[in-house]
Amino acid sequence: MDIKHPKDSKTELTDLVLPSETNPINNLFGGELLARMDRAASIAARRHSRRIVVTASVNHVAFNKAIPLGSVVTVQAKVSRTFKTSMEIYLDVWTEDRESGRRLKANEAIYTFVAVDDMGNPVPVPKIEPETDLEKERYEAALRRKQLSLVLAKKMDPHEATELKALFQ
Amino acid sequence: MDIKHPKDSKTELTDLVLPSETNPINNLFGGELLARMDRAASIAARRHSRRIVVTASVNHVAFNKAIPLGSVVTVQAKVSRTFKTSMEIYLDVWTEDRESGRRLKANEAIYTFVAVDDMGNPVPVPKIEPETDLEKERYEAALRRKQLSLVLAKKMDPHEATELKALFQ
Amino acid sequence: MDIKHPKDSKTELTDLVLPSETNPINNLFGGELLARMDRAASIAARRHSRRIVVTASVNHVAFNKAIPLGSVVTVQAKVSRTFKTSMEIYLDVWTEDRESGRRLKANEAIYTFVAVDDMGNPVPVPKIEPETDLEKERYEAALRRKQLSLVLAKKMDPHEATELKALFQ
Amino acid sequence: MDIKHPKDSKTELTDLVLPSETNPINNLFGGELLARMDRAASIAARRHSRRIVVTASVNHVAFNKAIPLGSVVTVQAKVSRTFKTSMEIYLDVWTEDRESGRRLKANEAIYTFVAVDDMGNPVPVPKIEPETDLEKERYEAALRRKQLSLVLAKKMDPHEATELKALFQ
Amino acid sequence: MDIKHPKDSKTELTDLVLPSETNPINNLFGGELLARMDRAASIAARRHSRRIVVTASVNHVAFNKAIPLGSVVTVQAKVSRTFKTSMEIYLDVWTEDRESGRRLKANEAIYTFVAVDDMGNPVPVPKIEPETDLEKERYEAALRRKQLSLVLAKKMDPHEATELKALFQ
Amino acid sequence: MDIKHPKDSKTELTDLVLPSETNPINNLFGGELLARMDRAASIAARRHSRRIVVTASVNHVAFNKAIPLGSVVTVQAKVSRTFKTSMEIYLDVWTEDRESGRRLKANEAIYTFVAVDDMGNPVPVPKIEPETDLEKERYEAALRRKQLSLVLAKKMDPHEATELKALFQ
Repeated sequence: MDIKHPKDSKTELTDLVLPSETNPINNLFGGELLARMDRAASIAARRHSRRIVVTASVNHVAFNKAIPLGSVVTVQAKVSRTFKTSMEIYLDVWTEDRESGRRLKANEAIYTFVAVDDMGNPVPVPKIEPETDLEKERYEAALRRKQLSLVLAKKMDPHEATELKALFQ
Repeated sequence: MDIKHPKDSKTELTDLVLPSETNPINNLFGGELLARMDRAASIAARRHSRRIVVTASVNHVAFNKAIPLGSVVTVQAKVSRTFKTSMEIYLDVWTEDRESGRRLKANEAIYTFVAVDDMGNPVPVPKIEPETDLEKERYEAALRRKQLSLVLAKKMDPHEATELKALFQ
Repeated sequence: MDIKHPKDSKTELTDLVLPSETNPINNLFGGELLARMDRAASIAARRHSRRIVVTASVNHVAFNKAIPLGSVVTVQAKVSRTFKTSMEIYLDVWTEDRESGRRLKANEAIYTFVAVDDMGNPVPVPKIEPETDLEKERYEAALRRKQLSLVLAKKMDPHEATELKALFQ
Repeated sequence: MDIKHPKDSKTELTDLVLPSETNPINNLFGGELLARMDRAASIAARRHSRRIVVTASVNHVAFNKAIPLGSVVTVQAKVSRTFKTSMEIYLDVWTEDRESGRRLKANEAIYTFVAVDDMGNPVPVPKIEPETDLEKERYEAALRRKQLSLVLAKKMDPHEATELKALFQ
Repeated sequence: MDIKHPKDSKTELTDLVLPSETNPINNLFGGELLARMDRAASIAARRHSRRIVVTASVNHVAFNKAIPLGSVVTVQAKVSRTFKTSMEIYLDVWTEDRESGRRLKANEAIYTFVAVDDMGNPVPVPKIEPETDLEKERYEAALRRKQLSLVLAKKMDPHEATELKALFQ
Repeated sequence: MDIKHPKDSKTELTDLVLPSETNPINNLFGGELLARMDRAASIAARRHSRRIVVTASVNHVAFNKAIPLGSVVTVQAKVSRTFKTSMEIYLDVWTEDRESGRRLKANEAIYTFVAVDDMGNPVPVPKIEPETDLEKERYEAALRRKQLSLVLAKKMDPHEATELKALFQ
């Protein structure tokens, strides 16, 4: 399998915030944004692997800014790192001011997808090579996040999580 | 108001075809695609005008290729021509083969939006200047389409529709 | 196959405008109305052909009047003309004032459907014979619209579009 | 207020059964049909009263026939009897065979709506006069159903429910 | 088959009232509540029978209290009585005041489900034994309701409806 | 403000997996489960705080088991720890086998909500005291998760994250 780059999986989902997608204080409902990000991330994972992909985990979704009814929201997803059969997808979300046209960063999220065959068994995915500085930074951090998940799930001894451990020394 | 270009309003909505959006033969339901194109077109119109925009008409939507369940569909919208208070939006729709990654053109559509103020009254929109050959071609054709709409709605005498009439001579 | 009449395919879909179907200025969202019309038109096409039918194109949808939240909306669809395997469906949309009960015409639209077999291949449909004056007028105009579509898609030489050309002479 | 007739409130909602509306054995989901009937009934109640109307109760909905995916379903609603501020709505539901075009009765239901003012307080509704034999039969039975509701809710002594009691003597 | 108890099928569906589920006066739409109750009742019926279950009828749904946008709504369903292949499900609906946390009874409903095999044919369900006083009271009343349905559907002679008839003597 | 316990906010949302909520291999769509968990978690947060609550972040959602179409899914949410104005909600998700009735753990997730006033400003929430062993374990771990979020967001120096750091020593 050829090596790919984050830009090969770049996926953009620009859409409105409709009344059916808002919470009682007229902002985009958290659950709706989670669902949109899941769809965009699954397309990015599929573009990278050209396989059926399923959500494996969701991590570090921070809702920093409320997104009001009527906003234009852009969800951008790119594969940030691959492991044997899984892919970490990094998502950036922007809103756009109608009058000025200015884009504001609303939040970020990290999803993990696994590539599977028709029977649902995991299959290997192509390797990835980051290009820009931001892509390289996210690629490095992905390994620490992976170790962290394993430590928290008690599937890895904290002392073996070398890169993660280094943070605290 | 400054002159703008079609690329300034370019809007991309990439999303999956989910089971809830298919017809009885498991292809994307026409009505759902019409709704997605309406949302993408309204964002393009809004990016051009920075105003509240409402759908004025839909024309020339050809469903050339069925889009099966599970497809990735990209709807791309750009303003193709402006009139006093209205904007013609040209939409291109592609699907993407999961295994080869190849993009296939699925259909095109033309929507018209009007910019309005808070009371719903039409307001002028910035002029547009096409740049690429395709943008220029669509810009020219937009005038004939406008005349055609007026003729069919009996709001213009066919003999005054100079550009349209020229087609038949 | 027997000849049929427009009234044989008459389909009425009366429904409310719910909050989940409105745009930011509290009127029925264009995309939702397009989807409702697509469903009503597909039923009319099916009633005429007794076949599986798929949307082929959408044309000349004019959104003349905004339809506010809470309205009762009636979409009426009838086959207006048939060609070999396709049917033109003419749609009329009314809203209804709650206090006076008066019906107001909100917009019109024209959809084209193709009848297909289980494999998705086009199959012939019964011929149609218009009865009322309005049905006859729409039947005649359908031919010009058909020629126009072919001319705009560059599948017909404008000089062969006899009925359409006559408009400009 | 003028006297009205059941035909004045007749409401027809013809629509498809889409994949998103089916249960695990591919028939129309009971809850979705209940929701469609509620919308049709509310329009009939509104046409009779020209008021805001709210669902008061649902009774005697029998799901006699399963309605498969892809069916055309017609819900017809008419006011069958009025009381001081409430209206009983009788609903008939048909499906339609695609190949033969034959209509089959799928089920019936009875909903009760109350007319209210902007503050949600009940307001009187016009009287109704049944015309056809079926309308007269349903009008008579509505009184027994009303007594039955009151008896079951312990708001009426069974011995005062004269018309209902007569059934058992 | 073992005898079961109402508590074995107890099902609780607690959810929010979102903007997409409200009527024009900002209360939970009747049709949406009917659909939620149908889903909860079907789970209770399935827990009792461990079979595929389909809605057979809906009765006696009283909407006593409007449920405003933003409310927390709890739908609780329990099998109240079984017949040969059918189950009566009794539903209680509460809302919850955000500030005081107090629960208010909003309405009750009675649904009937039938257990079926893969071909849709009715199959026998386990017997039920009520335990609490309220369960016993609902169990007794279920027989009268069953007789009443049969009488109203003209499938039982009123004089044979012994328990129901007793109410009026 | 009184001290509360995790059981005070316990929220259960039991519902079906409908066809409209599945991915192309007929399992519950990740995005739909994320949305359901968000609604359940928001109710738990509201029950604890009796305030308007908004999603602040989502962490550690592991999709361990696919949930097939037609399943009964129970989402249970309880507040696991409170900070000044925020609450960590721990969610457990089970599916239920129709034939055996056996419950299987499908996944876990952790959401954080903030309590706000009508203007959207954070307000303090009641303290919480865990009771069961599992509640105590989750309460302890919540502090490490909080430190971790702050470290990853570069809002805390790793060396000050005492409890988290202890893991690696």
